[in-house]
Amino acid sequence: MTLADRWLLPEGVDEALPEQAAKIEHLRRTLLNLHESWGYQLVIPPLLEYLDSLLTGAGSDLEIETFKVIDQLSGRLLGIRADFTSQVARIDAHCLKNNAVERLSYCGSVLRTTPAGLDGTRSPIQLGAEIYGHGGVESDIEVLSLMLQTLSAAGLTDLVLDLGHVDVVSGVLAACGLDATQESKLLALYKAKDLPELDRYVESLDTMRAEQKQWLIGLPRLCGGKEVLDQAHSLLGNVNESIRDAIALLKSVSDCISSRFPMVGWHFDLSDLVSYSYHTGVIFAAYVPGHGNAIARGGRYNNIGQVFGRSRPATGFSTDVKALVALADVVVTPPKTVLSPICSNAALWQKVNSLRNEGYRVVEVLDDFYAEDADFKLDFVDGSWQLMPVQS
Amino acid sequence: MTLADRWLLPEGVDEALPEQAAKIEHLRRTLLNLHESWGYQLVIPPLLEYLDSLLTGAGSDLEIETFKVIDQLSGRLLGIRADFTSQVARIDAHCLKNNAVERLSYCGSVLRTTPAGLDGTRSPIQLGAEIYGHGGVESDIEVLSLMLQTLSAAGLTDLVLDLGHVDVVSGVLAACGLDATQESKLLALYKAKDLPELDRYVESLDTMRAEQKQWLIGLPRLCGGKEVLDQAHSLLGNVNESIRDAIALLKSVSDCISSRFPMVGWHFDLSDLVSYSYHTGVIFAAYVPGHGNAIARGGRYNNIGQVFGRSRPATGFSTDVKALVALADVVVTPPKTVLSPICSNAALWQKVNSLRNEGYRVVEVLDDFYAEDADFKLDFVDGSWQLMPVQS
Repeated sequence: MTLADRWLLPEGVDEALPEQAAKIEHLRRTLLNLHESWGYQLVIPPLLEYLDSLLTGAGSDLEIETFKVIDQLSGRLLGIRADFTSQVARIDAHCLKNNAVERLSYCGSVLRTTPAGLDGTRSPIQLGAEIYGHGGVESDIEVLSLMLQTLSAAGLTDLVLDLGHVDVVSGVLAACGLDATQESKLLALYKAKDLPELDRYVESLDTMRAEQKQWLIGLPRLCGGKEVLDQAHSLLGNVNESIRDAIALLKSVSDCISSRFPMVGWHFDLSDLVSYSYHTGVIFAAYVPGHGNAIARGGRYNNIGQVFGRSRPATGFSTDVKALVALADVVVTPPKTVLSPICSNAALWQKVNSLRNEGYRVVEVLDDFYAEDADFKLDFVDGSWQLMPVQS
Repeated sequence: MTLADRWLLPEGVDEALPEQAAKIEHLRRTLLNLHESWGYQLVIPPLLEYLDSLLTGAGSDLEIETFKVIDQLSGRLLGIRADFTSQVARIDAHCLKNNAVERLSYCGSVLRTTPAGLDGTRSPIQLGAEIYGHGGVESDIEVLSLMLQTLSAAGLTDLVLDLGHVDVVSGVLAACGLDATQESKLLALYKAKDLPELDRYVESLDTMRAEQKQWLIGLPRLCGGKEVLDQAHSLLGNVNESIRDAIALLKSVSDCISSRFPMVGWHFDLSDLVSYSYHTGVIFAAYVPGHGNAIARGGRYNNIGQVFGRSRPATGFSTDVKALVALADVVVTPPKTVLSPICSNAALWQKVNSLRNEGYRVVEVLDDFYAEDADFKLDFVDGSWQLMPVQS
């Protein structure tokens, strides 16, 4: 192994040197404090679990994303978490307290087998918040508001919010009576946004009524600004009740969020299928201009706790603290720095410790090379140790 | 998979529910702030690295402790870190700035294949600090002082400090001219503290002078309180210079630390071989009464950065935040809690946010089950939203 090789980190894996690490730590604290001020309680799920537990309730995507190791103690397969959601669902099931609403937040490292997200990372510091036990639009609005406050606290205000609802796609598919092959073909075309091929394919479906073909062809074209919700109501309002409810819900959510966060831009894509297998209601993602990947995303995923014996409504969001630091202009104010001689006597040792308690950073000068800029030094003047300003 | 199985966590792996998580986060911040006030800069090494880099400079113990996965992108073997030290050594090599002393601190999850430490954990939250670029006793004293301050800040003051120096054992072995088989036999006996068998074995070494036999037999008996250093000087002071220097160094360190931390108990064990392959000078560990495993440990490990192209003196310590929380009485003061109706109008939304900015925890009441004790509620009185105390 050469010297250069030892320096190399795996693709999508990085380390934070002091300047960046200070920003990450500062932002981590700011955001966890914000979540606490909204009533969210921090939990710390384990980094490592039995693979079966970790993938409980999650889709096959997460299985591929999860690093696996053999447990030398039990011989069983373990997974390093690639996501917090199913872990937090289990914790919610722990905290059973009547049927009260439970607000939980988390922040920690996850690992993924393949690069993803804004910066192609495999080792994000995932931070998120979730509400368990409330199925109404109010909790969707709360979680979405907290996501936008979180991004705003990180210094990101120029945002576009992508909003959708999984019932729109599933309602249209159900109303068209497609078989499994046809359905997966259509979902693939929606995902690829291949509209010409979609049109050809839908035309070829002989058993379908003209109205149904219009729904299938029109759905992926329901994308754009707020006008999309009215267009969706016109095109799909009579398909069935679940679609009508979904569109009405999107309207309530976007009206309330617009009034709270008037600067946020809007984008609706009613055929959007990100996390389709996972979510059960409103889904959303926040984008910053110039970046194709979301900086934060979330949505409703009711009943994820069912496998832990507690089926409850749930909604939440997550983001990556490292990606936030890379995008935002996080300013950390360092404490005033004091240089001290080596503490070889009790008076100096006491003085140094009391300065540290008062918020100073006091560094013992161990050698002549000490290069950091200091604000003060400690000198022995008139029988006591005193802070003296350093001229820079 | 049954419901009960899904709840099970692997041996030595745990999760922190809100009450414990709040303590861990509180202590994490307190200790990182302490380290900052001493001039230590936070770094965040990656959780995952090429195995070769991760094990660089470390002993075979660490290889066994490290979980390995295959990198799907490169086909190479990766390791999840089981320790921070070689990672921080690489970061020190990054931060090259003249030859200045570099103070680095870290806090993060590590994973180990087998349970270890005070609570048999495989997933500690390791927190530590290291000084690079200074080889004198002053940096040993600084790191040891910071370790004791760290434990004290965590609420642990009833401590016993175990102090040793690797040159004592290696100096005696060198002075006795043992072959490799004899040396490893002796080290095993020292490690097992099997004194009767040791005495028989040493007696059987025919080529050895009586004086040398006395050194070999006397060494593991050099354990106890501060009187051990004088005994060591009598028995081994004339063996060679490196032993004499080591004993003098231990005396300086213990004198200075005793004056700074008069409440700390002392234990010396000059044949102690913990981390022998790793360390190059003073080694130390802190114990709390009633627990056989150390709560924090450290020592000098010069030249660990050599493989990264920068051979520098280094000394440091580490501890486990979760173990500290389990032992110490960490008290977290929660913010005052305010219950608010759902923010359906702008005036209430603004009031709620300004209260959150002022340090209150404001919870929107989404359902009737909300059970948490609150200090205030928001009522609409005389045309504005006002804080009203809640009678408990």
